[in-house]
Formats: sequence, C-alpha cells, structure tokens
Amino acid sequence: FKGSPLFGDKEAGWDFKVRGRLQYDFAYVSNPSNGVATNELGFSNELRRGRIGVEGTTPGSFAYKFEADFAGNEVELADAYFQWKGKVAAISFGQHNNFQSLEELTSSRFISFMERAAFTDAFAFERRIGVSATLTQGDFKLDAGVFTDDISSVGGGNNSYSLDARAVFAPEIAGGQLHFGASAHHRELNDISGGIRYRQRPQVHSTGIRFVATPTLPTSTETSYGVEAAGIFGPFHLAGEAHWMEQGIDLPGATDPSYFGGYAEVGYFFTGESRGYKGGTFDRTKVKNPVNKGGMGAFQGIARVDYLDLNDSDAGVLGGKQTAYQLGLTWIPVDYVRFLLNYSRLELKDAAIAINGDRDYGVDVVGMRAQIDF
Amino acid sequence: FKGSPLFGDKEAGWDFKVRGRLQYDFAYVSNPSNGVATNELGFSNELRRGRIGVEGTTPGSFAYKFEADFAGNEVELADAYFQWKGKVAAISFGQHNNFQSLEELTSSRFISFMERAAFTDAFAFERRIGVSATLTQGDFKLDAGVFTDDISSVGGGNNSYSLDARAVFAPEIAGGQLHFGASAHHRELNDISGGIRYRQRPQVHSTGIRFVATPTLPTSTETSYGVEAAGIFGPFHLAGEAHWMEQGIDLPGATDPSYFGGYAEVGYFFTGESRGYKGGTFDRTKVKNPVNKGGMGAFQGIARVDYLDLNDSDAGVLGGKQTAYQLGLTWIPVDYVRFLLNYSRLELKDAAIAINGDRDYGVDVVGMRAQIDF
Amino acid sequence: FKGSPLFGDKEAGWDFKVRGRLQYDFAYVSNPSNGVATNELGFSNELRRGRIGVEGTTPGSFAYKFEADFAGNEVELADAYFQWKGKVAAISFGQHNNFQSLEELTSSRFISFMERAAFTDAFAFERRIGVSATLTQGDFKLDAGVFTDDISSVGGGNNSYSLDARAVFAPEIAGGQLHFGASAHHRELNDISGGIRYRQRPQVHSTGIRFVATPTLPTSTETSYGVEAAGIFGPFHLAGEAHWMEQGIDLPGATDPSYFGGYAEVGYFFTGESRGYKGGTFDRTKVKNPVNKGGMGAFQGIARVDYLDLNDSDAGVLGGKQTAYQLGLTWIPVDYVRFLLNYSRLELKDAAIAINGDRDYGVDVVGMRAQIDF
Repeated sequence: FKGSPLFGDKEAGWDFKVRGRLQYDFAYVSNPSNGVATNELGFSNELRRGRIGVEGTTPGSFAYKFEADFAGNEVELADAYFQWKGKVAAISFGQHNNFQSLEELTSSRFISFMERAAFTDAFAFERRIGVSATLTQGDFKLDAGVFTDDISSVGGGNNSYSLDARAVFAPEIAGGQLHFGASAHHRELNDISGGIRYRQRPQVHSTGIRFVATPTLPTSTETSYGVEAAGIFGPFHLAGEAHWMEQGIDLPGATDPSYFGGYAEVGYFFTGESRGYKGGTFDRTKVKNPVNKGGMGAFQGIARVDYLDLNDSDAGVLGGKQTAYQLGLTWIPVDYVRFLLNYSRLELKDAAIAINGDRDYGVDVVGMRAQIDF
Repeated sequence: FKGSPLFGDKEAGWDFKVRGRLQYDFAYVSNPSNGVATNELGFSNELRRGRIGVEGTTPGSFAYKFEADFAGNEVELADAYFQWKGKVAAISFGQHNNFQSLEELTSSRFISFMERAAFTDAFAFERRIGVSATLTQGDFKLDAGVFTDDISSVGGGNNSYSLDARAVFAPEIAGGQLHFGASAHHRELNDISGGIRYRQRPQVHSTGIRFVATPTLPTSTETSYGVEAAGIFGPFHLAGEAHWMEQGIDLPGATDPSYFGGYAEVGYFFTGESRGYKGGTFDRTKVKNPVNKGGMGAFQGIARVDYLDLNDSDAGVLGGKQTAYQLGLTWIPVDYVRFLLNYSRLELKDAAIAINGDRDYGVDVVGMRAQIDF
Repeated sequence: FKGSPLFGDKEAGWDFKVRGRLQYDFAYVSNPSNGVATNELGFSNELRRGRIGVEGTTPGSFAYKFEADFAGNEVELADAYFQWKGKVAAISFGQHNNFQSLEELTSSRFISFMERAAFTDAFAFERRIGVSATLTQGDFKLDAGVFTDDISSVGGGNNSYSLDARAVFAPEIAGGQLHFGASAHHRELNDISGGIRYRQRPQVHSTGIRFVATPTLPTSTETSYGVEAAGIFGPFHLAGEAHWMEQGIDLPGATDPSYFGGYAEVGYFFTGESRGYKGGTFDRTKVKNPVNKGGMGAFQGIARVDYLDLNDSDAGVLGGKQTAYQLGLTWIPVDYVRFLLNYSRLELKDAAIAINGDRDYGVDVVGMRAQIDF
C-alpha cells in the first residue's frame, strides 16, 4: 500500500496503481477599504483539485501515468503520458510538465503553501503535449523536450510549439540535501487569436479576482529563464527561485515587455521531520509520529516572501507588482493527509484594480486546505 | 470481492476499492388527450447514472470516497469527501449529502422505485461541499454540518451556506428493524442571480417535462423540516416521510410560500428476502437464491403513494399538486444486478402545463431500469 | 497481469480489471498548391484517445465494461454496458457498438492504420444505447439488437431507433483464420433538427478539415449494408469490406441518395508474428521477441486502398470521392505499446473544397501515433 495498493510483478516488469487526490480550500480575501464592488472578495471555497488516475509499468521498461482532474465538474487531464525508462535515459510521450520551476514541478500534494509562487501561474506554466528526454547521472538530471500545447488547445488550428530544458544538480553534502537548477524555455505561437495576458490570483484560487494583470497583447513568442536553489537540513528547508519572462509582441514597432517573479522561503518541522526530496523536486514527507501510532503527526511552519512584477514601463505595460508576505502552518496527521493554514499580506503597487482611484494598497488573505491523496 | 475486489491491510488500517454503477432507463409517459405539443412525452431513454470512483481508508482512521458520474457525457462529482472516523464520532470534509430525507440518503442502487419521492428533487436536495460531524451511539445517530454549495456552484461569487442536521433512532424490536428520523435545514443564499424554482419530473428522469413547477422567485433563505419512519419485518417493509419547505422571498412585502411533499410505501419480497438497512438508510438486499446458485433471484413488489404540493395560495404561488399512485416490481438476479419495472398514475391539480385550458388531469407513466453496480 | 492486474475469483464468478489507453497523434497534411486558406492543414497533433475504465464479471454470468474517453478534456463514454453471458447466448444492455463493419468493431488498439477505413466515420458508426443479443455456435456468431442513440443524444426529445444485425462465419482452414461477415442496419429518425451530413477527414483525425462532405439534408431514415472478408495466414493478413448507405430524405419528391465505401488491405509481419483474431474482430498481436527479452519487437508493414464515394448524381448530391493509397509501418516493442507511421496519398474528385476552382486534386498525408494500453 502506497496510499492505495501497489500491484506488481517485479520479475516480469509489471506494476499498477490507482492514484488520486482531493483538496478542499476555504479562503477569506479582504476588500481594501471596501473599495471593490465585487462578490469575489470575502469568503470563497472550492474543490481545488479532485483527481483520479492510474500509473503503471509494463515489461520492456515502459511506464505510464494518466490522471484526470474533475474539480468544478469539468475534465482537465493532468499527467497523461507514457515513457520508456532506461537506466540513464528516459523518453516521454504525451502531456507532461515542461520543465519550468522547482515549485511548478513539485506535486501540489507536497508544495509549501496552498498555491505555488505567483509567477508560476502568472506565466501560465502548464502541462503540454510533447516528446522529451531525461538524462540522470549521479547528482545530475537533465530534461529537454519539444512541446506543442495542452490537450484542450491542440488541434488542426493551433501550431504553437516550444523548446524547454532544465538542468538540476542535487548533491548531498554533510547530511544535507542541496538543489541547484536552471531552466530555459522558448515558445513560438501561431494563430493564437486573442493574444496573451499575464495575471495572478491573491495566493488563493477559490476567488477569481486578480489584483495584478497585464493587458492582452498579440504575442508571437515567449522566452523565459529560471534559476532555482534549495536545501534541506534536518527539519529545516530553504528554497528560492527567480524567473524572467519576455513576451514577443506581434505588433510593428512594439517593444517586447519583460516580467519577473521569484520567492524565498524557509520552513521548519517542529516535530522533527525532514522535507521529502526526490528526482529534482520536493516529495512526500514521512511523518515520525503519525496519529495512528499515538503521535500527533507532523507540524511544519513556513515563511515566504513571494514577488511578482508585471510592470515594464519601457514597453508601456503596467500590470502591477505584488509582494506577498506569507506564513503557513501545515499539519500532517498521517503521510497521506494534510491540513494547511495560510496567511498572506499582499502589498500591491500599480494594481490592475483601482480602489478609490488608488492602485497601491494592501490585502489580507487567509486560507485553509484539507487534503488527502492516495 | 464486494462487487469489485476489496483490497486491505487490516493491521495497518489500509483498504481500497474501485466502485461504480450503470443505470439504464427506458420510459413511456402518456400525453393526456394528446394535448401537449412536445416531443418530451412518449418514449424516452437515457443512461441515468454512470458512475465510477474509489473508496478507501488509510492508517490513522482516515477514509475517503470519490466518485464521478458521466451520464450524458458530462462530469458531475457525487460523493467526494474524506473523513476521520473515530469509534463514536466522525468528521467529514468535502462534498457529501446534507442529511435530508431517508429516500435522499439511501443510495440510488437500493431505492424502491426508479426515482426517489417527488419532494426530494423538487426541493433540490443535493450533495454540497461542507464540514460535518456524525455521532453514533447504539441505535442513535446524529449528523450535523455546515455546507456551502455543490462543486459546480461554489467559487468566489457564491456565498450561500446552510446548516443541516438529522437525528435517527433505529432500534431492532422483536426481530424487526425500525427507523425513526427527523431533519432540519436552513440555508442563507447570496448572489443567486435568477432566483429559485421548485419543480419535478413525472417519476421518470429521461424526459425533461415537469407537470408541476413554481415560478422562479428571488430567494434569500430556504428552511425545511422532515420526518421519517420505516420498518422492516422479514420480507415486508414500510416507509413514509413528510417534508416541509419554506422559501424566503427576497422581495419587499412578499409572503414566503411553503411547499410540502411526502410518501408512504409498502414492499414485499415474494422470494423471502429482507430489505437491507444500515447506518440510517436502506442498504443492499442479500438475495437468498441467486441465479448463480440455480435460483431465480429475488422478486419484490412495492406500492407507493407519493405526494407533492407546490401550491401556496396565501403567497400567490400555484405550482401544482402531483399525486402518484405507484406500483413497482423489482428483480434482483444476483446481489449486484437489479431490473426495475415501474408503473405510476399521476393525478395532477393546478398543473404548470395546461391541456386544452385544463390544469387538472391524469398521466400514465411506465418505466424500466437495468442496473449493475460494483 | 493483462496490461494491468486482472483480479479474479474464478470459483465464485468474480473478476475485475482497470483498463485504459493513450494514443498521441502527430500529422502533416499537405495544402495542395497552397490553395486552401486554412490553418487546419500542415502540422497538427492531439491526444486521439485517452480512455480509462473498468471491466468485470459477477456471479450469475453477468459482465460489465465501462470506459470513458477524456481526449480534448471532454467526456465521451465509450463502451458502457453490462450483459448476461450464457454459453451460447449473451444479452447486452447499454451503450455498445451496433454491429457495423469489421474495422469499426475492431478495437482502436489493434486497427491497421491510425484511422479506420473512411466509410466508418463518414457513415457515423458509433456506440449507441440499446439491447442486443449475441449467439455463438462454433465458427458462427450472430449479433442483433435494437438501439436508440448515443449517451449524449438520447433524452426526451430524441426518439430515433435502429435495428442492427451482423453475422460472422470464421472458420480455421489449413492453419489459416478466415473471416466472412455481413451486416444490415436500419434507423428511423425523429426530431433530428438540422438533418444529417456525411463527411470524412483525410486519414488523420488531428485536423478538422474534410475534403469530402455532403450537404446537410433533412433525414428520416438510414439504411446500410456491409460485407466483410478477411484472412490471416501466418505473418500475412488480408482484409476487405464494402458498405452501402442509403439516406432517406424527408423532403417531398426528393430522391434518396446512396453512398458507398470500402477498402482492401494486406499486411505482413517482418518479424514473424501473426495478427490476433478473436470473436469476429482483429485482436492483440502477441510479439515473438519483445524488447524486454532482448528482441526488437514486432514490425508490420501494411498497404491499403481505401475508397469513399459520397456522390449520387441521381439524387443531386455531390459530396466527392476520396481514394486513399496507404502505406503503414507498425512497431510493437512489447504487447501493450505500438508506434504507427502512416503515409497516405489521397486522390480527390468532386471534392467539397475547391482549390483555385478545381475540385479534383491530390493530398499527401503523413501521420504518427504513439500508443500504450493497459
């Protein structure tokens, strides 16, 4: 049992497991000076993710992962790929993540806060259909692939494609796990009617409001770069990233705007656990004294500063800057259940939503998540 | 095997099962005096429910149930919750039923007729996201919770919530199983654009017609009360409920209308089985002589009077009254397969659909269901 | 393990298996003389099928199969039925294929090319809700059923129904497997607003273009007949079909148009395998030297001529004729993984899309598929 039973015939190369997760969110977002006429502020809640799927291997070193999300009573396929997995190299076919950011690549089951760092959504990182190769050698891991678009968007009329790569160096030094990573991405768009805009929610997803948002601009390319660093030392962990996005505007004489996002966080397990890490991303934390053994589970405190800058005055884009000061308390009663309590203070500058004519203000956000996975 | 294999590691607290059901309905609804110009009458059919999901437990007394319905080639999540289950108390997180009516809480796999009593749909009972507690002590069971809305409807712009509670006393007396229940519900709505209407189909679901229906009215609250009684005595069972709904109208000077629904039924297994009952609802019937053992399966006859009153002349609402006289024959060849044959005579008064100017008339309804679950 | 674990309790009659498939397609369709102003030509790709489901049996000789397709992030139920399976006869309830064409009835996991012969889609063969009986006696198999419509289309307002039957004689002669089949279909439509048209994509599905297409005509009946023949002789196989469709036009004085489609193909396993066959359709091929045993898997070459005639000059319909000359190379590294490479030269006459005023021209199509099933 790994959440659900793992069936296998190791000799022959078979294994199989059903997998899934439920994440329920409850949130409160303040309405500064009650100045925004919307019902998207105040209380909100949702099924954030409701996934079910399968994973397995077949003889000949093939493996697959196929998972659907039914949140909102809609279908959105998540991982839906298969791969050939050699000792050093693997080749993947289908929809999978295209190698942007430690936060983005870490499963939502294991991230530090309810929502990932603001830049990951703002820059629209997502899984796309593609073919990629992974090389693993000691502490080094290299991913590179070519991708088209996500399963909803592909089809005869959409010929966008991207090249994506990420390199990770993850040595264990003096009992600690270090992580250094860098990624680069370039996307060529074609026939994207309506253009692209970058925007972000206020650290919770159940509301639809975005205090920061660029206008929608006709876009022919996207180029982004990211650097990552993290470390796990016993109950402590540190993590930080920086990511730059350049939007190639498809207008004569236009200046291409650049945007930036990043974060730095520190976490500590009061109950002595150590954050899980595996294959270039954070992984499941093993609880030392779970409630089924008479313990109280694991308690972790996390602090993060998360920054997103959607302004580029040279290019005439004023999407706003959002700085979030965040505190999180996570309770993991058993390995497969988590409860998250998050507080964020958002400081906004040049926000996309003006309050009594003012675009610089603060917002308070409280969120809770109840999560099980299997 | 319980329909499908149940995997478990009792020692550690794990178990896991895939679950699902298929219900195919075929129906004929008469067109009184051929007076209704619609193609919704006459023959109709549908996949009534096509569900697949999982359930399981993890160490630490956590349990989950997560099931999606794909009927109509659309996704609608049914139960999607997890809970902590102590000896006496349980706490549930996520989308689950909010404690209204024995009929509503009994699984569609085990209900007496193809459709539940008219008031359950008319009053829009459904699963919603919430947090609830269950206390079980001997023959007593108490459920209480606070709910927001269903998975489709929640989000930043919907701040409705409800308080729901139900108490059940289910003693075994002289070899019979008795059931007494009462429930109360109060819901505060907010930003429900378009208001609420109450209406109901003619005891089959494959047609979209509703002979009874209130107008849509701006609504700020819903308050309802229900009482339940049932008994199982060998091959016999009896069941009856009454439910009152008060609609709080959000208009100055408006009188709040009240509606009522209820039913009484009696069933008998010709083949000697006894209707299943467990935890405050009807449950699976165990077939005495299933076809795989050379028997003919279980045959059950059921008669029901089902009544729905959507009139409130004080409040100026004339939604109509529907009385259904129903006969059902159920064949259960093996525990997990059921075939239902239903006949209903509907007597309508003040119906929402006039036939040659007449709003009082009768309708004949024949329905069949073929069902498997696992 | 049969792709995924098969759980069973043979004694009692239980078994259960999760099942699924992923098919990713990449295609290039030439734009003749660059004469079509569309972005549907050139490169396209998609998740062709992304299915997950279950199948099982219960005591009493009941069996079920329930599978959903999530390609395009939409739900489309595929097989969703249960049946009673005796030694000679079986009765099926629910959505299943209605007995048209060897190609249509062969699973997409085992078909020769990426797309089935043009007539199968053009004539809109699909799974529909129905009740059918199957008789199997030695080398003979007879299917007959009555069907309504597919799960999306049924409902009160749709009263179409069809009668469908197919007979197969499949003797083994001198070490070879022969297959002879014939099918007949008649459908009565009712309230199909908008009428019916017949059309087809250019042998790949990721583009939405159709070079051949009839106009949409008000239709009251569809009647079709098909004949099938196939043979498997060691590494060789042959297959051919012919299918006639008559559209009953619901207009006074209209002549009912007839359409025709068919194909002939020959395939050869360079690596010595023999194409699988079972129960009246092609089945999984067992790889002789799979990659997990140090082999190179199975390689199969296939050639096909596929013809579709949507013209009926007597009836005044000029939908076009499409002849496809096709070459396919299939690599099956292990039993459950396939890679397909297809080339098709389409010769069009009276095409629905004119190029510089010309309706007779050729199109080149290259397609690739990566597939895993379990």
